[in-house]
Amino acid sequence: MKIYDFRLAPNPRRVRIFIAEKGVEMTYIQVDLFAGHNYHAEFLQKNPLGALPVLDFDDGTYLAESVAICRYFEGMYPEPPLMGINPKDAAFVEMWNRRMEFELFGPIGRAFQHSHPMFKDRIKQFPEFGATQREHALKRYEWLDSLLAQREFVAGDRYTIADITAQVAVDFGQEAAGVPLPPHARYIKRWHETVSARPSAKA
Amino acid sequence: MKIYDFRLAPNPRRVRIFIAEKGVEMTYIQVDLFAGHNYHAEFLQKNPLGALPVLDFDDGTYLAESVAICRYFEGMYPEPPLMGINPKDAAFVEMWNRRMEFELFGPIGRAFQHSHPMFKDRIKQFPEFGATQREHALKRYEWLDSLLAQREFVAGDRYTIADITAQVAVDFGQEAAGVPLPPHARYIKRWHETVSARPSAKA
Repeated sequence: MKIYDFRLAPNPRRVRIFIAEKGVEMTYIQVDLFAGHNYHAEFLQKNPLGALPVLDFDDGTYLAESVAICRYFEGMYPEPPLMGINPKDAAFVEMWNRRMEFELFGPIGRAFQHSHPMFKDRIKQFPEFGATQREHALKRYEWLDSLLAQREFVAGDRYTIADITAQVAVDFGQEAAGVPLPPHARYIKRWHETVSARPSAKA
Repeated sequence: MKIYDFRLAPNPRRVRIFIAEKGVEMTYIQVDLFAGHNYHAEFLQKNPLGALPVLDFDDGTYLAESVAICRYFEGMYPEPPLMGINPKDAAFVEMWNRRMEFELFGPIGRAFQHSHPMFKDRIKQFPEFGATQREHALKRYEWLDSLLAQREFVAGDRYTIADITAQVAVDFGQEAAGVPLPPHARYIKRWHETVSARPSAKA
């Protein structure tokens, strides 16, 4: 079993952090997204959409989609639980993970794709649309800050996959996408220091 | 327990179909999205993002995000399984559900939002961006057609949540968003007739 990965892309990092939190050893194979190696025929046989990461079961089956890969490891290695401890809790963790995906990670990604030269030849860019996505994420940061004023982690009292998604979104926004945290977002900063101090942050 | 719903919106329909497939009785309360009632203060207390559907547990907790609501009912009512039967299968169902969400449902939704008068005062519309989203969905329909040439349902041999997401995407594309199925997509049409004949399609 191995995972096709790229150190500099945000989605593969979500899976690396998740697997590190589970304490699972994994082999990672680098696929250079910058050089477009994810569009080579050999890789497209593994994931026809050309996206990373991909889990290779070494039996001819390939699992794509970061959260689906996390779901597999959650099922195989239930401890520590990162996707909920009972049906109701699992549903709330999923709600928070999706909110982090759709309200932060997604808009930050689109802000990046519609402004960065790397995507100039890959998609039709609309920089003004990208700017609206940046604004959306900044507005949601205000909301997230008010939530983290009242609890330790994104989904409540325990660290979950929703923290991983938010962590990767924040770092990608700050380091690559031109969507830095608002300077006054003190509760997000407190939470970000906490999750960044976990060994998994370096995965 | 009740669900805040709107008959004419696609996301609430995903949950209604899922719950109908589970054979669960549910009370649905209509919130008129057209009239903007989802932005009234009373509703924003239930979901600050203003989105439908929302599951009201009648104990002061509210669960948003369609797939999170489905996850709750999957956990409480495991039969028939709609989200996988073991960890590996659950991961593959999640991959296919996400592919239907991110490659069809999402682009079709954005094609709608960036072209429909209903969204004129709600978002900054970029009709040309909407057109790229329409093209994206049409391209993915070619891919989906080639997949359904080889299997009965989206995720394989069994009906799952991935079929529900695809079904709602196809219907919303055809009926509202100006993204009809390509005329030659015969395998999608065969599949669509099958899922549309299930009693849950009218939920």
